[in-house]
Amino acid sequence: MSASPVTVLGLGPMGRALASAFLAAGHPTTVWNRTPGRAEGLVENGAVEAATAAEAIAASELVVVCVLDYHAVRAVTGPHTAALKGRTLANLTAGTPDDARVTAEWAASHGIGYLDGAIMVPTYLVGGPSTLVLHSGPADLYERHRATLQAVGGTCAHLGTDPGRAGAHDVALLDIFWTALTGVVHAFALAGAEGVSPRDLAPYAKGVAGLLPDVIDAFAQQVDTGSYPAGGSNLRSAAVIMSHVLDASRSRGIDSTVISAAHEIAERGMTAGYGDASYAHVAELLRG
Amino acid sequence: MSASPVTVLGLGPMGRALASAFLAAGHPTTVWNRTPGRAEGLVENGAVEAATAAEAIAASELVVVCVLDYHAVRAVTGPHTAALKGRTLANLTAGTPDDARVTAEWAASHGIGYLDGAIMVPTYLVGGPSTLVLHSGPADLYERHRATLQAVGGTCAHLGTDPGRAGAHDVALLDIFWTALTGVVHAFALAGAEGVSPRDLAPYAKGVAGLLPDVIDAFAQQVDTGSYPAGGSNLRSAAVIMSHVLDASRSRGIDSTVISAAHEIAERGMTAGYGDASYAHVAELLRG
Ligand SMILES: NC(=O)c1ccc[n+]([C@@H]2O[C@H](COP(=O)([O-])OP(=O)(O)OC[C@H]3O[C@@H](n4cnc5c(N)ncnc54)[C@H](OP(=O)(O)O)[C@@H]3O)[C@@H](O)[C@H]2O)c1
Ligand SMILES: NC(=O)c1ccc[n+]([C@@H]2O[C@H](COP(=O)([O-])OP(=O)(O)OC[C@H]3O[C@@H](n4cnc5c(N)ncnc54)[C@H](OP(=O)(O)O)[C@@H]3O)[C@@H](O)[C@H]2O)c1
Repeated sequence: MSASPVTVLGLGPMGRALASAFLAAGHPTTVWNRTPGRAEGLVENGAVEAATAAEAIAASELVVVCVLDYHAVRAVTGPHTAALKGRTLANLTAGTPDDARVTAEWAASHGIGYLDGAIMVPTYLVGGPSTLVLHSGPADLYERHRATLQAVGGTCAHLGTDPGRAGAHDVALLDIFWTALTGVVHAFALAGAEGVSPRDLAPYAKGVAGLLPDVIDAFAQQVDTGSYPAGGSNLRSAAVIMSHVLDASRSRGIDSTVISAAHEIAERGMTAGYGDASYAHVAELLRG
Repeated sequence: MSASPVTVLGLGPMGRALASAFLAAGHPTTVWNRTPGRAEGLVENGAVEAATAAEAIAASELVVVCVLDYHAVRAVTGPHTAALKGRTLANLTAGTPDDARVTAEWAASHGIGYLDGAIMVPTYLVGGPSTLVLHSGPADLYERHRATLQAVGGTCAHLGTDPGRAGAHDVALLDIFWTALTGVVHAFALAGAEGVSPRDLAPYAKGVAGLLPDVIDAFAQQVDTGSYPAGGSNLRSAAVIMSHVLDASRSRGIDSTVISAAHEIAERGMTAGYGDASYAHVAELLRG
């Protein structure tokens, strides 16, 4: 069985990484980018650079789009509904779940098959075994193109038919990633102000990151079941700890907007009577 | 060589865990708690329960105190400066670096040896190989009591003579831990509102946590050197991603104070001209 053709619209760092992975897996790959001249390297490896988006779309039954955001998706695909009709658009651009649902409706209204996906790893991992791409949309469409989509390597998962489901995972996971990294950068600023270099803190910071998976499992089960046993540490002590971080930050003149917002959530948890429960109980306050 | 005696003041969950570890390592252990009746289990394992703090202090040259906060430390130790004189007080209570420095001055003014430490693991790990306790204060005092302090298991590290140095690590590491966990709980609330159960998200969330160590190393080096190459993803794309998280949260009526504060930091980074740099560049804005 020869590998199916695929088109990649968008040659930013991620579009280029996807196209490289398709080429490496032997798929005839057609590429296009709004700004020309982004296909070097890819063309040398066998990609066909299309002069127009319409030409690129015409080349493959499966059209992957990976651009900045959903405005860019509309800008790229909007003028080409006729060309896309009957084909499958696999949109791997990051956005909100509602972005995905709106785009799925637009696609359906034009007879375009639509899969919405989220790439959960940085570009340099794409093509390798730790790639993770989450897809959502019609199961039959996913099955039809699964072999090609899996050419990006690692794990491709179909999460369900709601087109917003991949995006829901995406925003939730990026929420964790960027909130955590904001904590990391803040901690480096705070440590630095105390004469502790980020290099000295890093090994311990990685140890802290290593504690998260167990807590993630424990908190997930608590939020799922609505039961919040404190275990070793409760919301009250979390609130006290956050107040230490806040005091230390303020006394060194360091921006404390994020830890202050987190501390306020813990305080609201105290007011709600959750002091003896697990910190995860605040999930019920966040929900509004 | 027989194991040295040690006293533990404070029998909350952590004080009890410390006392258990000292007992398990064969140290004659005297314990005391403000509220009596917290020594069961410990006494069965050989601990001596003192009737007063003064009596407990008199029992050992090394006195470990581990209570709620530094107010409690003052309440426990303040009336006993005469009894503590010439002994070593190892304060393993969590607080700010300045708390530690003020307490070190108080101790010095009363002829009390003072070590300030931070316990970086939950109670259930204390005594086991993954325990991590950071100490700071005079190197000779640490050396004198090292064998006893190490009885809590795992890694004990002496970070330096500044008594605030353990506390500086403590607040910075807890900053990362609780900021990240606030992101986790928020992500569970957001995912839940989108019909994705925390249980379904958890395996992917653990995958995200697994990406943090490499980024921590990269960011540490960037902040250390003041050079912020973007690598695979830049501050501009971080700001866009955070705006997706924010939009998705708001559209589901979910509290978004923390991610909103993080997004504002990214926006300030954009305004400062850091868009093409690594997100870690915002460390320089946080510093004020
Ligand atoms: N980079 C990563 O590590 C990573 C990881 C996971 C997910 N993602 C997601 O993957 C997507 C692509 O990311 P990226 O890293 O390749 O870079 P990016 O900077 O997010 O996107 C650049 C691409 O978008 C195109 N574009 C922007 N505005 C456009 C418009 N109005 N019309 C047409 N094309 C437009 C650019 O074309 P021009 O060259 O003409 O400007 C370029 O092809 C994003 O949604 C990103 O969040 C990226
Ligand atoms: N638990 C953990 O997983 C963990 C992890 C790392 C670090 N720590 C740190 O370890 C320290 C102790 O924590 P913990 O978990 O044992 O419980 P905790 O709730 O933080 O502290 C309880 C202890 O503090 C005493 N206490 C409170 N106020 C007092 C006062 N005014 N005067 C005298 N004693 C007072 C309590 O005595 P009563 O029984 O009389 O109230 C009890 O012995 C804290 O600084 C905590 O941040 C804990």
